[in-house]
Amino acid sequence: MTEDLSTALVQTRDPAKRSWLASANDAACDFSIQNLPFGIFSDVRNPAPRAGVAIGDWIVDLAALRAAGRLELDAEDDVFSRGSLNAFIALGRDAWRSVRIQLSALLEAACPALRDDAALRERVFVPMQSATMHLPVDIPGYTDFYSSKEHATNVGSMFRDPKNALLPNWSEMPIGYNGRASSVVVSGTSVRRPMGQLKLPDADRPIFGACRKLDIELETGFIVGQGNALGEPIACGEAEDHIFGMVLLNDWSARDIQQWEYVPLGPFNAKTFATTISPWIVTLDALEPFRVAQPEQTPEPLPYLRQAGEHAFDVALEVRLRPEGASEATTIARTNFKYMYWSMAQQLAHHTVSGCNTRVGDLMGSGTISGPAPDSFGSLLELTWNGTRPLALEGGETRTFIVDGDELTLAGWCQGDGYRVGFGTCAGKILPARG
Amino acid sequence: MTEDLSTALVQTRDPAKRSWLASANDAACDFSIQNLPFGIFSDVRNPAPRAGVAIGDWIVDLAALRAAGRLELDAEDDVFSRGSLNAFIALGRDAWRSVRIQLSALLEAACPALRDDAALRERVFVPMQSATMHLPVDIPGYTDFYSSKEHATNVGSMFRDPKNALLPNWSEMPIGYNGRASSVVVSGTSVRRPMGQLKLPDADRPIFGACRKLDIELETGFIVGQGNALGEPIACGEAEDHIFGMVLLNDWSARDIQQWEYVPLGPFNAKTFATTISPWIVTLDALEPFRVAQPEQTPEPLPYLRQAGEHAFDVALEVRLRPEGASEATTIARTNFKYMYWSMAQQLAHHTVSGCNTRVGDLMGSGTISGPAPDSFGSLLELTWNGTRPLALEGGETRTFIVDGDELTLAGWCQGDGYRVGFGTCAGKILPARG
Repeated sequence: MTEDLSTALVQTRDPAKRSWLASANDAACDFSIQNLPFGIFSDVRNPAPRAGVAIGDWIVDLAALRAAGRLELDAEDDVFSRGSLNAFIALGRDAWRSVRIQLSALLEAACPALRDDAALRERVFVPMQSATMHLPVDIPGYTDFYSSKEHATNVGSMFRDPKNALLPNWSEMPIGYNGRASSVVVSGTSVRRPMGQLKLPDADRPIFGACRKLDIELETGFIVGQGNALGEPIACGEAEDHIFGMVLLNDWSARDIQQWEYVPLGPFNAKTFATTISPWIVTLDALEPFRVAQPEQTPEPLPYLRQAGEHAFDVALEVRLRPEGASEATTIARTNFKYMYWSMAQQLAHHTVSGCNTRVGDLMGSGTISGPAPDSFGSLLELTWNGTRPLALEGGETRTFIVDGDELTLAGWCQGDGYRVGFGTCAGKILPARG
Repeated sequence: MTEDLSTALVQTRDPAKRSWLASANDAACDFSIQNLPFGIFSDVRNPAPRAGVAIGDWIVDLAALRAAGRLELDAEDDVFSRGSLNAFIALGRDAWRSVRIQLSALLEAACPALRDDAALRERVFVPMQSATMHLPVDIPGYTDFYSSKEHATNVGSMFRDPKNALLPNWSEMPIGYNGRASSVVVSGTSVRRPMGQLKLPDADRPIFGACRKLDIELETGFIVGQGNALGEPIACGEAEDHIFGMVLLNDWSARDIQQWEYVPLGPFNAKTFATTISPWIVTLDALEPFRVAQPEQTPEPLPYLRQAGEHAFDVALEVRLRPEGASEATTIARTNFKYMYWSMAQQLAHHTVSGCNTRVGDLMGSGTISGPAPDSFGSLLELTWNGTRPLALEGGETRTFIVDGDELTLAGWCQGDGYRVGFGTCAGKILPARG
């Protein structure tokens, strides 16, 4: 990166910066001018899924902006019209940053280029509420980690031994497993309650039926922006350079199916029926001001997992549950991404240390994010302690696990001084099982 | 399928059929006229990877054959020139069968169309020994099962309890886990010994180092030919209609990394560094004459896993090990795919019963295939009983686990009366760790 690009990049994060689009300046708006996340959208006017950037209540149509000669990009074909961001992301970090810098300048309060050109604005801006969001990337591979110490301790206490809740390998490496990429869906997609094998207490054999312990897992995910070749690991100190950005991720989980199937090869049908992600990828460049120290790691990690500096990010997270027909959602958990024990950089370094290759668009889930307090747990399993402590919802209902018709929504944002860098939401409603 | 197509399909399997290509009629040749497997190849004359069918010592260039007007296919663009078979497979089973039937007729001894046209033969046939083979499909998802009762029993005996070697869930469902699709490589690709965390006996903490217990897993894999939509399971009785064909699969495994990492979420870095498959996909249509009954299933599976008829296939399998510089390989295991407890149809039905979607090109590994006899085990872990019973090789060397420079080769074939329907080989040589 040149010095000019570096200076311009820092300026995109100036907390004092405001946009000529009023909705972007609302202190509670996720999509401030400091954010500028990337996604794929379509609308009635143009049903072709294409690349956009969120700003306030609007989406900037990047293909239209480039076609109008207002966005420079050193790429021959139209990477913004492909229906996924993969081709754009594959151009590399200088390209992502150049687009970010140009958009920040165009949307800044004093810039007249779009502000004062109604015809151009009409071509380039789409109201967010009239748009349909799509998966932002084609996901060649999905990996899910298990990197919250509080979550792993809670689960270990419930299902193994409260005195030795953490397994010995947990503190030595970011434990992860391969997820199922085919069933990753975008926020807003309804999810059907899965059928599967359930082993009831005292029964000799399992039965086949609808999941009775359907749960969420509050996670974030990062999107690989630059892969690595087979046999060539990514060093921990360079891992963040390989990350394009982050999304919210709900790792829907059928706890009863999981408990019966998961030994010895891990969760399978309990998770593969659906994973929901939020549509906007918040770039690491936008998250930079919210970098904080991660929890102390004891024992000190092996050398390949060591990193200097701060590698956690202060992202407030919430889970909301709205029963079918209810007017209000209840916030059932509040936590923060900064509690994660293992960083994204450590996860990516560990993932590739054996030589495993990664590819542009790969999705890496954080694992359930639980904080220290009982209302900061990232799953109903923990919040209700495996169904033994029902949650009270607004309106008088209670919940242990998810009921058909419930809508579960994750939300997340970094709180700046008078502005937010937010993720939007990651929502899904549960449909009855096929039966 | 029309009645004509059905009759023609049966005729492609006639054991008495012979080709005008002499090498295809050799009783030990894997690629008889009854086989006709599909793959992706390139050669010096044309370095573009394209679709071919193996026959004797030759590859039929399908794109060239179609361009010459000798192969009819109801598809507009050239699905044979794409660098993977996915687009061809996506045309559906009638298209696969039509191509098989046309090739069988063109290659049959009495057919003059190619046999007597030297110029056309020159354009359409490539000597197998001069070709480079590529991955036959882009693999959107890779799942690996664990469906050999003998293998699961051996592993359970070694690492858990010989008296309760099989876990209770094993007999109720085809246990599987998500694999890593990015690191699936084609036969002939060298594999670097992985680095990773190893927990040595009596050590308090793991060390980081090169795998000391590098192993193979002798498997087959099937390729999904017709996927299913999210939320719409594939019934067991219809599952074989969704399968395009089979390959050999070596699920390279770092046993020491695996033992330390796999609880509770399953194998990860121990497997993700590489998985090798054979380049030719043998279709279910070619395997039909070798259908046999699978082992008796006790207890009777739950209804969604029940199937009438015979769903195992009689495929002889071998593992060969050749040390660096050795002139001869030693066959270290001989077994058969027919020993598998859970069928491919049951695997696919179970995989999708929760609603999980599958896609054209998905790869589903059988799991290590071990037979009842000690020399029929499909891994060095079992053959040497975790390194305690070294194997003697031709030439005097011994092996517990794989040594740098060793080449491991899987081979497999169905033995007909005077002909074979074979898979070719699935080979890989181990390079030293990066260290």
